[in-house]
Amino acid sequence: MLEHIPTKEDILAAHERIKPYIHRTQVFSSHWFDDRVGKPCVFKGEHLQKTGAFKARGAMNAVLVNAEIAQGKGFITHSSGNHGAALAWAAAQIGESAYIIMPENAPKTKVAAVRQYGGNITFCAPTLEARETTAAEVQSQTGALLVHPYNNYDIIAGQSTATLELLEEHPGLRTLYLPVGGGGLLSGAALANHYFGNAKVVGCEPNASGDAYQSFQSGHWVPAQNHHTIAEGLKTSLGDKTFEIITNYVDEIMMVSEEEMKEAWKFAVGRLKQLVEPSAAAGLAVALKHKGEGPAGIILCGGNMDLDPWS
Amino acid sequence: MLEHIPTKEDILAAHERIKPYIHRTQVFSSHWFDDRVGKPCVFKGEHLQKTGAFKARGAMNAVLVNAEIAQGKGFITHSSGNHGAALAWAAAQIGESAYIIMPENAPKTKVAAVRQYGGNITFCAPTLEARETTAAEVQSQTGALLVHPYNNYDIIAGQSTATLELLEEHPGLRTLYLPVGGGGLLSGAALANHYFGNAKVVGCEPNASGDAYQSFQSGHWVPAQNHHTIAEGLKTSLGDKTFEIITNYVDEIMMVSEEEMKEAWKFAVGRLKQLVEPSAAAGLAVALKHKGEGPAGIILCGGNMDLDPWS
Repeated sequence: MLEHIPTKEDILAAHERIKPYIHRTQVFSSHWFDDRVGKPCVFKGEHLQKTGAFKARGAMNAVLVNAEIAQGKGFITHSSGNHGAALAWAAAQIGESAYIIMPENAPKTKVAAVRQYGGNITFCAPTLEARETTAAEVQSQTGALLVHPYNNYDIIAGQSTATLELLEEHPGLRTLYLPVGGGGLLSGAALANHYFGNAKVVGCEPNASGDAYQSFQSGHWVPAQNHHTIAEGLKTSLGDKTFEIITNYVDEIMMVSEEEMKEAWKFAVGRLKQLVEPSAAAGLAVALKHKGEGPAGIILCGGNMDLDPWS
Repeated sequence: MLEHIPTKEDILAAHERIKPYIHRTQVFSSHWFDDRVGKPCVFKGEHLQKTGAFKARGAMNAVLVNAEIAQGKGFITHSSGNHGAALAWAAAQIGESAYIIMPENAPKTKVAAVRQYGGNITFCAPTLEARETTAAEVQSQTGALLVHPYNNYDIIAGQSTATLELLEEHPGLRTLYLPVGGGGLLSGAALANHYFGNAKVVGCEPNASGDAYQSFQSGHWVPAQNHHTIAEGLKTSLGDKTFEIITNYVDEIMMVSEEEMKEAWKFAVGRLKQLVEPSAAAGLAVALKHKGEGPAGIILCGGNMDLDPWS
């Protein structure tokens, strides 16, 4: 288990470790988008990653690093989002159990995804307190190892590999756009860029959940307010580990409105024909208005959302 | 202008002709889908084609073949669907005008697509009669060349190139699934398979618009009934040219319900993270229940549909 900010070697080792399990996701571009923003851009399709999100990278790395400690007891987390499904999937890859604590009101597809990967679900009241109490109970019964969704260096090292791959293929990128919720993807990207790239790193956050922006600007950790945003995955507060890395290695955090994210989402779906989740649209929306240098790279972080045009 | 059923050489020539303009679209697969159907399948992503549909192939071929005849006068069609946008796009590639007759109630995105490619739109009442009358008027004013959406051998030769590419990359395919509306894609695929492949060719049609099925079974051309289906692109009747080719070179036509198409669409969006239009889901839906031999190939014909989860 990593006890320090991942080094260059830690990131390369994480990549080698998870390579046999994850997809090296496709990188593509759009003339229309390039024309709109006036610079060449590349999109890395982590919505095409195992479990439909970059979260598979961090979860797989954490599971492999901690396989011996968790042997026969499994892994546990209380994320209701993509991390829950990713941890269930990752644990299953090495034949271990995963215990996922989910709020009773979690979307059906998220519950179905965890089940599909063989995760053991315990439902609880939809409060942070209930989640933590329930997780502690299940943990004491099972001895499973808690894997935090982002405030964990093994997770951060795993997430950094998305940006590592992008920089391997496009070493000349001058700007990188990444959505920020808990900060696992952004801090991993900032480290990968620090060691292997030369881009400005821009975190992308909804106005409705501007805690990372406020934390970054003030230099003091600010918790997320529970405001509504279509980018559900970005409502989380930073952790102390991700906050520290972001403070030191990220260049800027820019916020976007709900309307800007919706427009960006419609671009992804209408032009790229790629189903991304609204959190990924936050990165696209910032890229559409930010005056950063090109070429730019945008990580489409995930593609898990409910869509039923005929309901 | 081709006056006969495209030969092997006609198809190869069409492919060479349009190659500089079109995308050689990506072919991909899904373990989940293979497990569901019990055989290996490949998907050809024509939703990623120029203009978001395979229609760009036929339109580009027809425009290039007839460039001299239409020089300075342009091209005209009265398709309200993907063919209208494709013809506008194709004409613009060689600097010619395109006149697109559209019903007043055409979806806004279809109108926007035609405009975006520089097409000149004339609106008319939403009846076949009004379309034909209006087209005749505009044609007499402009001298533009009428390019039928499917009952045209240059169009059919162009559409056949999607299957040609798929068979070049996967020569061992044993079954091919293609949606059928007017029959341009299906008849082109059947010819490409006849010359270059060795698969059973299966046309895929909504129950609500079973005219191709009825025509194929009875051996007599049956017109489409105007029943509602989510697969708008497949409501059209066969033409005499496509009917003849389908009768001679297609192995089977199978129908699917609206529910089966919705389920297949949700698979494409939820699992593949690819936005396809409901017409493409007809092919997937047949592939999900048909007992054809593997490996199978499925052409995802297009990706143009309105989606607004927040409206």
